[in-house]
Amino acid sequence: MKTIGFIGLGIMGSPMAANLVRAGFDVTGHTRSPAGLDRLVAVGGRAAGSIAEAVAGADAVITMLPDSPDVEAVLFGSGGLAAGAGPDGVLANAAPGTLIIDMSTINPRTARAIAAAATDVGTAAGFRVLDAPVSGGERGAVEGTLSIMVGGAGDDVAAAMPVFEALGTTIVHVGPAGAGQTVKTANQLVVAGTIQLVAEAIVLLETSGVDAAAGLRVLAGGLAGSTVLDRKGASMLAREFAPGFRVDLHHKDLGIMLEAARSSGAAVPLGAQVAQLMAALRAQGDGELDHTALLRLTERLSGVTNPAPHQVDRSDA
Amino acid sequence: MKTIGFIGLGIMGSPMAANLVRAGFDVTGHTRSPAGLDRLVAVGGRAAGSIAEAVAGADAVITMLPDSPDVEAVLFGSGGLAAGAGPDGVLANAAPGTLIIDMSTINPRTARAIAAAATDVGTAAGFRVLDAPVSGGERGAVEGTLSIMVGGAGDDVAAAMPVFEALGTTIVHVGPAGAGQTVKTANQLVVAGTIQLVAEAIVLLETSGVDAAAGLRVLAGGLAGSTVLDRKGASMLAREFAPGFRVDLHHKDLGIMLEAARSSGAAVPLGAQVAQLMAALRAQGDGELDHTALLRLTERLSGVTNPAPHQVDRSDA
Amino acid sequence: MKTIGFIGLGIMGSPMAANLVRAGFDVTGHTRSPAGLDRLVAVGGRAAGSIAEAVAGADAVITMLPDSPDVEAVLFGSGGLAAGAGPDGVLANAAPGTLIIDMSTINPRTARAIAAAATDVGTAAGFRVLDAPVSGGERGAVEGTLSIMVGGAGDDVAAAMPVFEALGTTIVHVGPAGAGQTVKTANQLVVAGTIQLVAEAIVLLETSGVDAAAGLRVLAGGLAGSTVLDRKGASMLAREFAPGFRVDLHHKDLGIMLEAARSSGAAVPLGAQVAQLMAALRAQGDGELDHTALLRLTERLSGVTNPAPHQVDRSDA
Amino acid sequence: MKTIGFIGLGIMGSPMAANLVRAGFDVTGHTRSPAGLDRLVAVGGRAAGSIAEAVAGADAVITMLPDSPDVEAVLFGSGGLAAGAGPDGVLANAAPGTLIIDMSTINPRTARAIAAAATDVGTAAGFRVLDAPVSGGERGAVEGTLSIMVGGAGDDVAAAMPVFEALGTTIVHVGPAGAGQTVKTANQLVVAGTIQLVAEAIVLLETSGVDAAAGLRVLAGGLAGSTVLDRKGASMLAREFAPGFRVDLHHKDLGIMLEAARSSGAAVPLGAQVAQLMAALRAQGDGELDHTALLRLTERLSGVTNPAPHQVDRSDA
Repeated sequence: MKTIGFIGLGIMGSPMAANLVRAGFDVTGHTRSPAGLDRLVAVGGRAAGSIAEAVAGADAVITMLPDSPDVEAVLFGSGGLAAGAGPDGVLANAAPGTLIIDMSTINPRTARAIAAAATDVGTAAGFRVLDAPVSGGERGAVEGTLSIMVGGAGDDVAAAMPVFEALGTTIVHVGPAGAGQTVKTANQLVVAGTIQLVAEAIVLLETSGVDAAAGLRVLAGGLAGSTVLDRKGASMLAREFAPGFRVDLHHKDLGIMLEAARSSGAAVPLGAQVAQLMAALRAQGDGELDHTALLRLTERLSGVTNPAPHQVDRSDA
Repeated sequence: MKTIGFIGLGIMGSPMAANLVRAGFDVTGHTRSPAGLDRLVAVGGRAAGSIAEAVAGADAVITMLPDSPDVEAVLFGSGGLAAGAGPDGVLANAAPGTLIIDMSTINPRTARAIAAAATDVGTAAGFRVLDAPVSGGERGAVEGTLSIMVGGAGDDVAAAMPVFEALGTTIVHVGPAGAGQTVKTANQLVVAGTIQLVAEAIVLLETSGVDAAAGLRVLAGGLAGSTVLDRKGASMLAREFAPGFRVDLHHKDLGIMLEAARSSGAAVPLGAQVAQLMAALRAQGDGELDHTALLRLTERLSGVTNPAPHQVDRSDA
Repeated sequence: MKTIGFIGLGIMGSPMAANLVRAGFDVTGHTRSPAGLDRLVAVGGRAAGSIAEAVAGADAVITMLPDSPDVEAVLFGSGGLAAGAGPDGVLANAAPGTLIIDMSTINPRTARAIAAAATDVGTAAGFRVLDAPVSGGERGAVEGTLSIMVGGAGDDVAAAMPVFEALGTTIVHVGPAGAGQTVKTANQLVVAGTIQLVAEAIVLLETSGVDAAAGLRVLAGGLAGSTVLDRKGASMLAREFAPGFRVDLHHKDLGIMLEAARSSGAAVPLGAQVAQLMAALRAQGDGELDHTALLRLTERLSGVTNPAPHQVDRSDA
Repeated sequence: MKTIGFIGLGIMGSPMAANLVRAGFDVTGHTRSPAGLDRLVAVGGRAAGSIAEAVAGADAVITMLPDSPDVEAVLFGSGGLAAGAGPDGVLANAAPGTLIIDMSTINPRTARAIAAAATDVGTAAGFRVLDAPVSGGERGAVEGTLSIMVGGAGDDVAAAMPVFEALGTTIVHVGPAGAGQTVKTANQLVVAGTIQLVAEAIVLLETSGVDAAAGLRVLAGGLAGSTVLDRKGASMLAREFAPGFRVDLHHKDLGIMLEAARSSGAAVPLGAQVAQLMAALRAQGDGELDHTALLRLTERLSGVTNPAPHQVDRSDA
């Protein structure tokens, strides 16, 4: 596992590819933006003008793309999964047996379909496929501290481990193909819900005339405590909503979550509700803000038009 | 601040009174059950046959009772707040100026009304009143590690500090009269919501055929992490629902939360929803279980009738 | 049943009292506003300067007041129910055996408590009490076409029937004391929910580029049809939100509904949600609008800032 | 407009095709089940062994199928929409210019995509396409009293009018391609929501000890009135849940509704909630019951295990 083709050098993909270079991998990247290619070359990788060039000779191919259709198009060519392996996609150009690691966040069902199709495609061996979405955001990508939830065969996970270790600190093999994506959707459900709960607590405290910073400090110390409170409480109190993780993306992810819950039969009453709230926030024009802007929506619902944000004391909440 | 009258020696009150004795306070307790009195005597406190006896000569009176009507009856006598200070209540028997600390979880509005009424009552000085509800459960009460959220005047909080330090580790003065109760209701909202989110995640993972223990491990390491996951994840996976904190009590507390939100104008969409779920769980006969039994309700909603609980590995999730 | 004392001559009470005068009853009214008294005198009733004067010699006393505390204060005097029959209330001044008919919308529990207390109070006979809230709004009150839902003893309902027939067209005895109020709360739940469903349908149609008037016409003709669609569809499409029935009042009524559901153990998931939405609408400053303004809230949630209201064709939807 | 090819002779399609025969159309049908073909022949239609045979010489082709993939497969052949017009589908076999009327309930987005693709396909003229889903159920199909909501070009709607008039009584052209499906999804949202509201009202009344039949009678007479109450109130009170319209199908339709709302940006808070409830009912094994079985779910949520159903008096509610 030495040579890596990396497709998708955006906000997440760029620092991830850079970390692979730093860890000693031979990385050839391809992406739509020239800037992304330049960044890779600057840290010692190689820029490819096409998918075919990026995956030639690769032991593993990593994709880090916005959504399911993008992943389908990159792997199978412009016709997508339904049309089979088209000539411009990864599958038509990578060597049989190559390990394909999709680290995008996509629908678990699509992930399973991709794994099934890619395993069949090609010559004798077919391909080996892992779904390995991440959490931890841009900062986690830059610092190499991502959490990586991996679905696929145990042998393939073992083979990919050196790659994962260059990218993250929490790496868990959670089940067969698609399982990584399922865990990611559960993660996005819990994160969105926890942010909304903290937002409701803040509005409840402030509309009642209570010092919200002091109140959150108590909550953080007990069973109401959460990583959201620890990492985001202060910026929420200060109404700082620069992303971070954008509402638009979390909205996309909650759509995936609802589909996954629907198809597995899982009841997600709070999940369905927070998906409505995230969609409303986006519809109101706040798609570019950090997902903690759910606080803003909650304030609008409460008729709070002029909150007096706390001075942020980072040691505070 | 040396002599304390303590009213309400139940599951929470008994170990709290014991901790006060251990810290050197002179504690006289009163409660309905002889067993509660016996426990206090056994650790070195004194048993009083009436409220009047319990509060005679006390510097501070602590109440630790189930709900608003109980607190009203103990402070104002059987007629409650509306009838003014009746002869059998604390106010008619304590010395003017006594510090009254209600540590029960009650409605913030009632707490404010009690503070207003008690400040007026009595002779020249009136009484000094704090609302100081706690979180941390029976274990926190026993170990003296409660979180205490205090509403009232700064001087009175300062005066009560030695008492609080004998009972808890996180002690925060969050605002004027009633503010402690408001923070407590925000706490109960966030705790119930977080439990429900974890329940939805577990059901989503398990109905999708994913290893939920592994999945929760990833969630706990990222922005989805929470004290609920850390402390309750394993027992939820094992379907161990012995309380802990009972559904019945959390149901009561969410009723208080909804009233508080309604009167302050705060929108609590997830709070309202989880209150419905907690009420349903109770209506289905599970009021005596731990509040994490929201998982059971979520499974019923998902048609899961026969979950295969994990063997609990306490180091697990 | 000839002489009636009528307390509360507001928007609803005034036309109701007038209808009683027209039907031949001898009506003496009392209310806080001089204008209300003048209106009653103008149609042939008598104005009383006090409750005592209004109920002197009455066979029946009708109360039509905003909320529970008002009803308590009028019946029991300023101390309310808890203080027993005070000298300035109806109970202290009406003749024993008088039929007391509360037509206000109040909490079923309070209605039951009032019935229990009033039956005990007074001399030998006590009082006879009915709860008889109405639906049909100001127009129904003026036209004598109210729906009246009556709780109480069968004999008393029979005795009150001539009174009810002067006020409404649908008169149903639904159960014992408090049952009328329970039905009213169910009514308010269904009305609010149906308005919200129509609002969601309109926004779904309009944001999808579909002619909403045509769409609602189809819905009205099938299983999606409702009185809300028939009577309110056109004004909702036209964004005409002059009351009608005010958001503030419906918000109050949904609070009563939630308490009733909570105490009976009924799950009301849509009810709890629409109560949150009505509260949000009110918090946003729209409490004075008609309750169909839930459409406005739904548009705000959908980021619709500039709907192009239909010209209203009253034959339309 | 004389000769019709009819694909899909199930519970709805069979009586619809029969009504067309009765109205004088020359109907050739194709469907998977021999029983369906026999029924058509019995009423005077012709049975076709393939899609190609059914559409040969047809002026119009009607499809009445379970879901989007079925419609895609019938029109475009087994490869579906993505693969273009395959040899075994309607488009490869019908004459250019044929009017294609899809009366199934499918995703509005798919309906638009089908219309766009079919208009392009074939020779010079392409096809003319309408989406025309119905409401009114099996009974409406048998009696020819369906409501038909039509999306497409005005000329095509005019051309299809004789066909529609043989099938239904309310026929409304609601907009361009896909608009019929959008209205259908709004319809399914409002129907499901109204059923759930009535279910909540029934449980609220019964758990409060109130005569629910009497209560619903009052509701039906005022602003809470609805076609659901009129047509389904009595059977709900009697707990008769034989379909009617099955939970499974309504669950499918609410999935379509959520997708439509998501893509148009419409907030549907009650819609999202009732979709969760319908999914839960199905997950609990009640997919084959009538959708009014939401009452059963609401009872389970309320801990009501043994309701005493009313004797049904059909004149009752």
